[in-house]
Formats: sequence, C-alpha cells, structure tokens
Amino acid sequence: MIEAKEDEELMEAALESLEQAIESKDGAAALAVLKTIDWEDQRWVVSQLSEDELGVLVGILGAEDAAKLLSHLAEAQAVEILEELDSADAAEVLAFLPLEMSSNLLRELHEEDAEEILAVIADEEDRSELERKMAYPEGCAGSLMHGGAVTFPVAATVGEVLADLGEHAEDYSDRDVQYLYVVEKDERLVGVLRLRDLVLSVRAKPVRDLMIPDPLTVRDTMELEELAEIFQQKKYFGLPVVDEAGILLGVLPRDAVRREAAEEQADMFLQASGIVNGEEIRSMPLMERCWKRLAWLGPNIGLNLVAASVIAANESTLREVIALAVFLPIVSDMSGCSGNQAVAVSIRELTLGILRPTDYLRVILKEGAVGMINGFVLGCVLGSIAALWKGNLVLGLVVAAALMMNTILSVLLGGLVPLFLKRMKVDPALASGPILTTCTDMCGFFLVLTFASAMLSHLVGV
Amino acid sequence: MIEAKEDEELMEAALESLEQAIESKDGAAALAVLKTIDWEDQRWVVSQLSEDELGVLVGILGAEDAAKLLSHLAEAQAVEILEELDSADAAEVLAFLPLEMSSNLLRELHEEDAEEILAVIADEEDRSELERKMAYPEGCAGSLMHGGAVTFPVAATVGEVLADLGEHAEDYSDRDVQYLYVVEKDERLVGVLRLRDLVLSVRAKPVRDLMIPDPLTVRDTMELEELAEIFQQKKYFGLPVVDEAGILLGVLPRDAVRREAAEEQADMFLQASGIVNGEEIRSMPLMERCWKRLAWLGPNIGLNLVAASVIAANESTLREVIALAVFLPIVSDMSGCSGNQAVAVSIRELTLGILRPTDYLRVILKEGAVGMINGFVLGCVLGSIAALWKGNLVLGLVVAAALMMNTILSVLLGGLVPLFLKRMKVDPALASGPILTTCTDMCGFFLVLTFASAMLSHLVGV
Repeated sequence: MIEAKEDEELMEAALESLEQAIESKDGAAALAVLKTIDWEDQRWVVSQLSEDELGVLVGILGAEDAAKLLSHLAEAQAVEILEELDSADAAEVLAFLPLEMSSNLLRELHEEDAEEILAVIADEEDRSELERKMAYPEGCAGSLMHGGAVTFPVAATVGEVLADLGEHAEDYSDRDVQYLYVVEKDERLVGVLRLRDLVLSVRAKPVRDLMIPDPLTVRDTMELEELAEIFQQKKYFGLPVVDEAGILLGVLPRDAVRREAAEEQADMFLQASGIVNGEEIRSMPLMERCWKRLAWLGPNIGLNLVAASVIAANESTLREVIALAVFLPIVSDMSGCSGNQAVAVSIRELTLGILRPTDYLRVILKEGAVGMINGFVLGCVLGSIAALWKGNLVLGLVVAAALMMNTILSVLLGGLVPLFLKRMKVDPALASGPILTTCTDMCGFFLVLTFASAMLSHLVGV
Repeated sequence: MIEAKEDEELMEAALESLEQAIESKDGAAALAVLKTIDWEDQRWVVSQLSEDELGVLVGILGAEDAAKLLSHLAEAQAVEILEELDSADAAEVLAFLPLEMSSNLLRELHEEDAEEILAVIADEEDRSELERKMAYPEGCAGSLMHGGAVTFPVAATVGEVLADLGEHAEDYSDRDVQYLYVVEKDERLVGVLRLRDLVLSVRAKPVRDLMIPDPLTVRDTMELEELAEIFQQKKYFGLPVVDEAGILLGVLPRDAVRREAAEEQADMFLQASGIVNGEEIRSMPLMERCWKRLAWLGPNIGLNLVAASVIAANESTLREVIALAVFLPIVSDMSGCSGNQAVAVSIRELTLGILRPTDYLRVILKEGAVGMINGFVLGCVLGSIAALWKGNLVLGLVVAAALMMNTILSVLLGGLVPLFLKRMKVDPALASGPILTTCTDMCGFFLVLTFASAMLSHLVGV
C-alpha cells in the first residue's frame, strides 16, 4: 500500500514536470520525463493532458519521438491525438510507425481525417503501400502481418547467407529474424530456413538443400478466427503470408494474432455492456461520448416501451391487484438474468468451437432442462415470498408459475439467439442482449398479468 | 455456404466413425478419425460424446494419444474428461502433458479429485514438481513458465556450445530454443546467448564474452498484469524466470502471457453475464450447471426483492396513479443500461492503465457531465411520451425528472463502483453489475414514486 502510494506520487510529479515542459515548449525536458516512467504510466499521464497540451507535446517532441509515444498508448488515445494534429504533422508522425500500426490507426480515424492525412503524404509509394494495407479488413492476415521478411534467393549457399547476416546484423536487429525465407526471382516463396539448421550445416551447401520446402503459409485474406486456430495447432513463432500467386508479402507473428484475439474478447465485453460504437475513453470530447452512448440507449428506450405496453394493456388487472406491481419488475429482471447466462454460454461455446451455429436441438435440450429446474427453484422461492407476504396462496401461485415459465422461455431464447445471429453474420455479443431483454420483459409482464386475470376473483384487493 | 455445409457433413461423418470405433473399442481407428479432422472440429466431436464414450475413448487411445487430444480441447472439456477417469488413468494421461498444462488442469479439478490423482503418482520427484507448480497462483510467471531452458556453463566456449547443439538437435527440437541461457554452477542465471551472435562469432571465444550479461529476468511470483506490461514494452519472445536467489527456473514465452490475457478478457465477459463460478460448457452434468447458475441467481433474487420493497412501501401512491406501473420498469431498466456503460468504460480504462483506482474525481466529473446530458435527453423523450399518452403534463414531468436524476446517479455509481472494487481487490467485472442494478432499481422506483406522491393531487386517476 505504501509502495502504491509512492508510485502515485511519482506519477503526479511526472505529470507536473511534463506539463511544465509543455508550457515552456521544452521538447528535451518532455522526453526526459517520459523516459523516467514506464509504458502504463505514460498512458495515464497522457490521459490527464488537455487536447491543447497534447498538440503542443507532439510538436515539441518531434515526429520520431511522438511516434514512439503513440506506439505505447492505448489505440483510442493514439487516435485521439492524431485527430488533434493537422494532416501534415499527423502524416509525419505516422511515417515513423510500422505499417501495420499506422494503417490500423488510420482505419480508426474519421474517414475524412484519414483521407486528408493520406493526401498529404508526398511519397507516392509510401501512400499506395499504406492504402493497400488499409484495404485489408481488420484482423485478417494481410492487416496483421509485419513487413521486412529477410529473404534469400534459392541459389544462395549457406556461407553466403551467413555472410549476409553478419554484414547486415545491424539492419536485421530490429526485425523478428526467427526464420529466413527462400524465394524465387519473382518473390514466390519456396522454402523456409531455420537459423539452427544454418549453424549446423556445411557452408558450401546451397540453401535449396537445407530449406524446409513448401512451407506452411497463410493467405493475406485469411481471417482472425482461422489464424488463431492455426497458431493454436502449430507452435511456429510466425508464418509467411502470401498472395494468390504465392508471392511472399510479409510475416505474421504469432504474437500479433494473440493480441488481436485478446482485443476481440475485450470488444465483446464492451459491446455486451452497451459500448457499441467502438471504444470510449473518458478523454474523448464530451458530446462524442454522450452521442456514442445515446446511440445505444435510444433504441433501448423504444424496446422498453414496447415491453411496457403489455403493462399498459392490462392496467385494469393491475388496478385490482396492486401487489402485482411489486412482482412485475422482479419477474422480468430475474428472467433477464437467466437468459443472459444462456447467451454467455452460447457465445463462449461458439468461440471455443464446441458449438456450431446449426446445433439448435442441442441448445434446446440442454437449456430446456436447466430452465425447468432453475425456473422451478426460483419460482418456488419467489412464489412463497409472495404468498406469505400477502397471505394469499393464489398470488404465490401466479407469481411462481409466471417466473417458472418465463425462465424456461428466456434460457431457450438466450441460448438460441447467438446461434441465429452468428448465422446471420451479426455479432452475437452486440445484439443478443437487447433482443433477449425486450422479449423476456414482454413475456414476463404478459405471463404475470394473464395468470392474474384468470385468477382475478381470488386476488381482488391484494 | 455450400462449403460450410460440406464441412458439417464431414464432421458428422467423423463423429459417426468415432462412435463406431469407440463401440468396437478400436483405438487405432479412433486415432485415425481424430487425425483426419482439425483441432476445432476435435473439440466439437468430443462435445457430442457421452461421458461413458469419453471414458472408453481415453482408454482405447492410450495415455499418450489421449494427452495429445486433451491438449487440443478447451480447458473445461479437458477437466471434464479427467473427472470421468479413475485416478490412476488420469495420472497417466497427465504425465504426458507439459507441466504448465497438467498443473493448470489439476488446479481446475475438484480438490479431492486433484489430491487423489496426485496421491497415485508413483515417482516422488514428479509429484513434488507438480505440487510445486500448482502452488503458484494462476496467471503468475511461475505458473505460466515452461521448463526445459537450454543452459550452458559460463566457462563453455562458442565451439562447445555449437557442438552440443548439433549433438542434441533432436532433443532440443521440441523446445523453444530462442535463447540459450548461461548459468553459474549453482544454476544462477548470469547471461543470455542469442543464436545469431553464436553464428557470427569465433569458435574459441568463451560464452562469457559473448553473452548479454545481467539479462532482464522476471520473478516467479510476478503477476499477469505486470508480465503483460513487460512484454508490451520489450519485444522478447520469452524471458527467463528466476527465484529470489536468481536461480533459473524456466522460460516464460510471450505467447503464454498473451494467451492468459485473452483468457482473462473472456472470463470478464462471462462474469459480467452471470457465469461466475468458472466456465460452464453444456456437456457438464445438468445439476452442476443448474447449481452454478443458481449460485448467481439466488443472491440476485434477494437484491431484486430489496429493490422492489420500495414499490411495496408506496403501494398507496401506485393505487392512485396506476399508469406509474408502466414507467417503473422503464426508468429502472434505462438507468441500469446507462450505468452499465459507465461500468464498462471504467473497467476498460483500468485495464488499459489510463485510470487509477484513486481517480474518483475524474470519474465524477466526466460521468457527471455525460449523465446530465444523457439524462436530460432520455428524460425529455420518456416524459413527452408519458405526458402525451395520458394527456397529463405532470405525469410527464414526474417521469422525466425521475429518469434524469436516476441516470445521473447510475452513471456516477457505475463509473465509481469498479474503482472501489479494484481497491478492495474484488474483481470489478464480477460484482459491479448486481450492485449497480440493485441501487439503480431502488433509486428509480423511489424517485418515480416520491415525485408522484408530491404531485399526487395533479395525478389522481391517471
């Protein structure tokens, strides 16, 4: 605890020094401050700066150091900073980032901003390279791969390769030289060399005889799910990415795939919680944050009205048995909870590959059984409370029967909705919740009020 | 779509062949079937087998191939299979898995089952090694690290190291030989060798002069969050793990850290959806699944009753203005949604490191602003609908004011609760939801009914 407190004081001090450096426009001082704190603390410090301060900071750091800072920040922070810069400055900073990072950030920017930045990139080759990279959908091999694979012609000898490695040791030191790639003259990949094999081989041997021929490759268009599966099966640190003709385009590190998969899991959690239009961080402009949240809450209010219209249609029953008003929200909320559990299990099983989008029958059987047991237990508990509270057995039976039936309905629906959505190519984490809640609310209100209407003579005045 | 259908038919066929092989107890046939389908399809096929079939399958495959199958399955599936086996068979299968995997599976088993399995392991060294590994908390470096680092004494020469590598190429081929480690006689780590440097060095040179001295290491007790941060900053493929005395214990691959981080994100999603006592898959026994879900639903019914008691206490108001019954669930549900968004943003910011558990003031300011704007917008929408529906302006004002105030309260609470829980070392994803929902329900009911009571003379009969 004391350590945590000291750490906090250090961060506060760093923030203060950084703000001073920004005020006096002292780039060297700002850089010195950033170098004293680690990556996570850099994120925090940056989140405390105003938009104006951030703009100045990037200016005084210069493009190269600003790029280094950006690469340590959360993606949403980096995007925000880029949006603050004018296009020329932004393009300069992006030029210092690896292509897979700069293209990803550009993809997250507002479209016009991204286009403006692309437009000011002077070097035509740089620009078209970036555009080609951005054209890949997020998460596919082409989008995640790194450039700069170390390649050798198929005619080279082991001695030549080792000599080249020694000569260019400096250049290669910042690349992931795990494997060396052997290519034909047209850049078509024909084999992979392992450092280990090189070391243990006669120097005059041609690499053609040493390489692993026809190596495992992935197409640039392959999507994340399939990539994750391949890396799960094969222990490679990276795989060569090729186009349709077999031309080597880059190397996909295992790490990049894992990272993207973790991002996708985080997205799922955010979406299930109602943050649906991309990530929100609290340093974003107020109106943007309000709008992002309202875009989700707005439709929700509509769905709530639809569900509550069931109550409105049964006002007369409610007027006779006012105690029902206490149980309406409990029944709908409890069924919603039960249904959400089923949604989560289906989404997880789909992710793990142990459920297919066509396995309806399995879900119906498995969820139906849970729904009957849990519905029975929960119904008995709530029904007993209702009966004891008002001293009316019929009230208890109405509440118990409604909760029981609605629990069965909601776990069935919760289990099945992600399967339907997956088949329709809609993200299950995004849409399952509101569909489920609306339906279970409606059904819950309907069941309670309908059963009560049928038993009205036994309930009047409760 | 046609491709997907073919794929499904293949899987059904594989399942059928596997079931036949199990029935005729033909291990070779079962193995042949498993080899024709990929990792994800193996998971699905296994999920379709009954418990008895799974027991037979492991028996006819033999321990080594059963272990290979287990390593491809989802963790929850592997745990289930182990629970089906008798202790001796389970121990035999586990012996073929890497230590980090077998210890992790044992940790997930029921405690008595794990102890029984440990008790039947004949080799005392194997057993104590496993127990030592299991003693590490989940997710720390000691738990995630792999064994089998390739080490050389500090007195060796480059030539000797290369010769040893050549000699043992076979043994090393299934280890992650990314770096070689240089140790003192007492196994204390003193340096790291890169393959690249070895290749490019004079053979007679002692490794002492070539190694990177005082390399970056991690302690075996270091937790996931810190590990993830280090690998984010440093591009190493793996880091040596040492104990207090600097003795080399194993190697922590970057990949293992990434994978564990993705698991943690998935857990967060499951917990936020009410699957709180470890993962559930639908092939688990029915009563176990019911019980796991009820353990979460039970307390929830209590919280719901607490919230609904506010309605019960205000029955007389409700009796006068029955239309309020329509708006009670809408106000409480909408506020719950708004609050959940704030919870998700706080949890995400904490994970990204741009929010500290002590940043209360920032959350209050940032969420308060959003709450006021969104509360105003939503309140106006719902209030207008209420006023128009019943032709009663006061009803509209009551509903609008209640939703507005409750939205502000719930985003503040939603934003702050994860910070409190984080400080109390409780998982925010697990507990934020129910705390938030109960409070916003109570407050929502209270606000609607209190405002209505105050305005009762203008509302009677609505």
